[in-house]
Amino acid sequence: MVTMCKVKFFPADREIEVPVGTLLSDAAQQAGVGLQVPCGGQGRCGRCAVIVEEGPVRRRSTARLSPDDVAAGYALACQTSVEGDVVVRVPPQEKIERRLKQGKRAEEVALPFPYEVYDQSVRKYVITLDPPSLQDQMDDWSRLQWALARRHDIRGVQASLPVLRKLGPALREGEWTVTVVVELSAWDRPEGPPRLLDVLPGEHLESLWAAAIDIGTTSNHVWLVDLISGKVMSQQADYNGQIARGEDVISRIIYASKGNGREELQRLVIETLNRLLEQAAQERSIRTDEIYKVVVAGNSTMIHLFTAIPPESIRLMPFITVVNQMPTIPAREICCVTDPSLGLRVNPEATVDCLPGIASYVGADITSGVISSGMCGEEEQLTLFVDIGTNGEMVLGDCTWLISCACSAGPAFEGAGVVHGMRATIGAIEEVWINPQDYEVTYRVIGDEKPRGICGSGLISLMAEMFAAGIVDKSGNIDLTLSSERVREGEHGVEYVVAWGNETASGADVVITAVDIDNLMRAKAAIYAGFSILARSVGLTLDDVGQVLIGGAFGQYINVENAVQIGLLPDKPFDSFHFLGNTSVRGAYMALLSQDVRRRVTDIGEMMTYLELSADNTFFDEFNAAMFLPHTDESQFPTVMARLEGR
Amino acid sequence: MVTMCKVKFFPADREIEVPVGTLLSDAAQQAGVGLQVPCGGQGRCGRCAVIVEEGPVRRRSTARLSPDDVAAGYALACQTSVEGDVVVRVPPQEKIERRLKQGKRAEEVALPFPYEVYDQSVRKYVITLDPPSLQDQMDDWSRLQWALARRHDIRGVQASLPVLRKLGPALREGEWTVTVVVELSAWDRPEGPPRLLDVLPGEHLESLWAAAIDIGTTSNHVWLVDLISGKVMSQQADYNGQIARGEDVISRIIYASKGNGREELQRLVIETLNRLLEQAAQERSIRTDEIYKVVVAGNSTMIHLFTAIPPESIRLMPFITVVNQMPTIPAREICCVTDPSLGLRVNPEATVDCLPGIASYVGADITSGVISSGMCGEEEQLTLFVDIGTNGEMVLGDCTWLISCACSAGPAFEGAGVVHGMRATIGAIEEVWINPQDYEVTYRVIGDEKPRGICGSGLISLMAEMFAAGIVDKSGNIDLTLSSERVREGEHGVEYVVAWGNETASGADVVITAVDIDNLMRAKAAIYAGFSILARSVGLTLDDVGQVLIGGAFGQYINVENAVQIGLLPDKPFDSFHFLGNTSVRGAYMALLSQDVRRRVTDIGEMMTYLELSADNTFFDEFNAAMFLPHTDESQFPTVMARLEGR
Repeated sequence: MVTMCKVKFFPADREIEVPVGTLLSDAAQQAGVGLQVPCGGQGRCGRCAVIVEEGPVRRRSTARLSPDDVAAGYALACQTSVEGDVVVRVPPQEKIERRLKQGKRAEEVALPFPYEVYDQSVRKYVITLDPPSLQDQMDDWSRLQWALARRHDIRGVQASLPVLRKLGPALREGEWTVTVVVELSAWDRPEGPPRLLDVLPGEHLESLWAAAIDIGTTSNHVWLVDLISGKVMSQQADYNGQIARGEDVISRIIYASKGNGREELQRLVIETLNRLLEQAAQERSIRTDEIYKVVVAGNSTMIHLFTAIPPESIRLMPFITVVNQMPTIPAREICCVTDPSLGLRVNPEATVDCLPGIASYVGADITSGVISSGMCGEEEQLTLFVDIGTNGEMVLGDCTWLISCACSAGPAFEGAGVVHGMRATIGAIEEVWINPQDYEVTYRVIGDEKPRGICGSGLISLMAEMFAAGIVDKSGNIDLTLSSERVREGEHGVEYVVAWGNETASGADVVITAVDIDNLMRAKAAIYAGFSILARSVGLTLDDVGQVLIGGAFGQYINVENAVQIGLLPDKPFDSFHFLGNTSVRGAYMALLSQDVRRRVTDIGEMMTYLELSADNTFFDEFNAAMFLPHTDESQFPTVMARLEGR
Repeated sequence: MVTMCKVKFFPADREIEVPVGTLLSDAAQQAGVGLQVPCGGQGRCGRCAVIVEEGPVRRRSTARLSPDDVAAGYALACQTSVEGDVVVRVPPQEKIERRLKQGKRAEEVALPFPYEVYDQSVRKYVITLDPPSLQDQMDDWSRLQWALARRHDIRGVQASLPVLRKLGPALREGEWTVTVVVELSAWDRPEGPPRLLDVLPGEHLESLWAAAIDIGTTSNHVWLVDLISGKVMSQQADYNGQIARGEDVISRIIYASKGNGREELQRLVIETLNRLLEQAAQERSIRTDEIYKVVVAGNSTMIHLFTAIPPESIRLMPFITVVNQMPTIPAREICCVTDPSLGLRVNPEATVDCLPGIASYVGADITSGVISSGMCGEEEQLTLFVDIGTNGEMVLGDCTWLISCACSAGPAFEGAGVVHGMRATIGAIEEVWINPQDYEVTYRVIGDEKPRGICGSGLISLMAEMFAAGIVDKSGNIDLTLSSERVREGEHGVEYVVAWGNETASGADVVITAVDIDNLMRAKAAIYAGFSILARSVGLTLDDVGQVLIGGAFGQYINVENAVQIGLLPDKPFDSFHFLGNTSVRGAYMALLSQDVRRRVTDIGEMMTYLELSADNTFFDEFNAAMFLPHTDESQFPTVMARLEGR
């Protein structure tokens, strides 16, 4: 017997009967009440917020809602089920937007170094010109150029037609007082000429905005920066709109090579970035065309797609990028090839500076990561920098040399290629503990929900615990002889049950299969082999590494002990590991603030040697050696071995 | 009684009866047969060509038809009347286009100086690169930059995104051999950096194209230039499409200041230029995107409108341009503000270099005219350069100094503001002779047609003859006491009949009125006052002038003796006058061929002093003194006075 509940929606004044436990979003849809669910019902975006005026509901998640919101009756329709007859009010969309905005506050990002506006290249000046007369008929443009030269020593300033079109009206509207925005130089024209980015009637010295952008294959990040204080004033992030066209760079490149795929992928990422730029601008109550400078980081494929440069050669032997170091580009030139009206939503004259990559699979996200990691600082400590995602990119070196490589780990750590793998969102098992006596499992789920699957950090944790509990052996084989119902012969072969159906969101068991484990072994082996070869290529071993810096969003959530346990990370003291979060956007931010840092990013790109693993005939040996838990050479993992013996 | 004729049209198979003498174009219209008459029935364009298969017709004009065409029965429908029953075939439009194209051949323009391709800044190179490999993974762009630096000493070459997008596919399609088009420098970046304009797979050294453009208020001219030989390979001209929005610069500026007027005027001139560029390209069987360099001349208003820079301040006290010297602009940035897909039809990367003007009414057409006139050559002769149109622009100087001014002559010399004035097209009286005994008139009409009106050169001639015959006195008053029916009191006051109705196209008398004469007197007085003030401002007189160079299309048709007779031009020996034709497009052509010439145009702009006549308090006196025939100060016109006394 199913208990039915009445759900009334206002202001639409619709009523519907649904079984108890039905999501409000489903009820709204059945009742024909329009509700926005842009995140697809994951409870991420907060757009489907409604007010429960009467009746019992159960809120699975209150992400994006403050305690005050909840007290006021707010609920996420996609995360809230009815428990009886209820009355629901759907607030106007603007009200939700406003609430979301108030709810979000940029977390304070510390200045990476003492900052002054003169450290970077964009300036604002207020200039009052002598008005022309019959005795002084100098043209407007010469008059402004002359004043910039005489008063600010800015010579030979150039301007585009759109800016020149503004000049005459701005001078007259401002009664010969204007605010000019000038870019003195860029990394690729350090000696200038300066560019006039804007001319505004009257005085407007109050602000000077810029944006640091990281285009990740999965997530895009925009940091809105006030160049006067140097501070990050808004942080926005969302999934890259290209995801629907392929999860990893290889599938995106294949998509780009067909029909209008490339143009479509460019459009999708520009749309994502524009949404983030708009959100950031709205949060600070500015217009996006007040953003006069942009630094972009991202892997080589993402940079190619952002600029609509054909990326095909990246995936074909011998793996060549078209451009590692983009020239600086006025934002008006970054527009959708098939729709020139869709441009990057910043001031059209803003210089867009894409940081340099060094190879097809070591892109600007890595050079940016290296600069923000500080591994090229004054300390001469041998450092290993690693960014684990679909590819594992790694850099070894100190302040005098750098060597890098990339290994195709496959998407296992991102939850793909694993039966119950998923991205690190609500419902993902992110950490696992296994009792070595009875092989029973405890786990933690993102959002404290019923589990839907296992994300990357959960898989690492699960592997480590299965190995420690003896459920898998050194070769990664599941021990079918164990006396546990969790170990069984399943549909896809041998598997281990992580969560029983009665605990999960879908009602089906969440398992890990022998094939999954093999994929994870390959992933971790590829990355560790990369470490080994990097070190050996310069005559060192991993023992010589003083610190391991882990960048990338994924890295933030890895449990080091687990990762060392399975031989993904080298066996080092815990305090040699540092988790840096999104080093890519942070490097872009630093380059935005300082011409000196920007030059050092190019220096890093130039000094970094790239080791092509597919041309290295020792890779296969190292990979095979790492296809054990933790490794064929146990001496490389002394603490793991000690712990195993201890148990 | 009217004789009716049957006209049959094929392939439409329509028949109509019309009175004898009816134009074929009118008959076609009545019969519902579509005929293109883009020139409005002036017999200019040749698009309405038909084949008269049977029956008698009279061809008023066969412009654009070769003798062979006429022999084959071709006739211009708008210029051909029926004289009996006729059968007419309307050929498909493509056939007409083809015939027109074959009919046109660029008249040979001599090289202005010995030319080598290295005199200008655009180069083509074929480059074969070492293909990349796993051992050499340099990105495509660095690989090309490196080869350009090593093999051709071209360093720091830059490229736009659209060119970078071509790079990868071009290298691979050409199997690592490509042809690159590079612009080494431009006048505003003489030290570079070089720009990569194009990259084409394989070898393409056979040609290198450029265009010289003159944007006149009335006519636009495009010369297609082969930069390898330096020769002009096609000359195209047409009316500026903006004419429909105002005949002179002032009315265009007013139009530009209303609504989307500015954007519309830009669109109109770009459309005109694109048509001419297409015609030129078709004539030489090339694509317009093979045109890699463009130099543009034109008056300041035309340059502002071409680039859509608001021109309002040009016509308002104190008459200020926004930009005298445009920066060099990639062609892709010259596109219609309201329709970015409508760009200038040349290679999008081609540098468009607008020559410098020096003031609102002394524009790039004059600096271009001065360079092409040779007045700044080695000869130290005091020279007066004059371009008579709506405005009279004039420059006085020698190779060491230049002074210029502009006087608003009004449009009288262009046929406007005169009752029967018209532009110099078919049917315009272009020269007049009056018998001083009986005041009877002989005239010459452009196209040997019945007169429809009087053009500028005809008006000058008419004034001179009326003065010489005593029909008007020194003040320009018509002598009503003369015993001639031609002198009479008409609808618009006192007038003189130039052509009786039975001689004219319309059947009405063509006359000149006292008001017309006053307008012409003002026009010629303004110009002569300009000459006088220019000379006096540097402590000289017109006697010191060694040569008078007359530029502009209009100048070509002036009868010097007539012009001196009425005091429009100074009284100098005939051989001191030189008619140079379109000096503006010729100057653009010279600047296209030589970086040195291009620099000298800027030097000319910088060395030229501009005298603002509205700020000169002697202008009114000089103007009044010149409001006589030939002048109040008869001593300035000794030969005129001698001739008058002789008669």
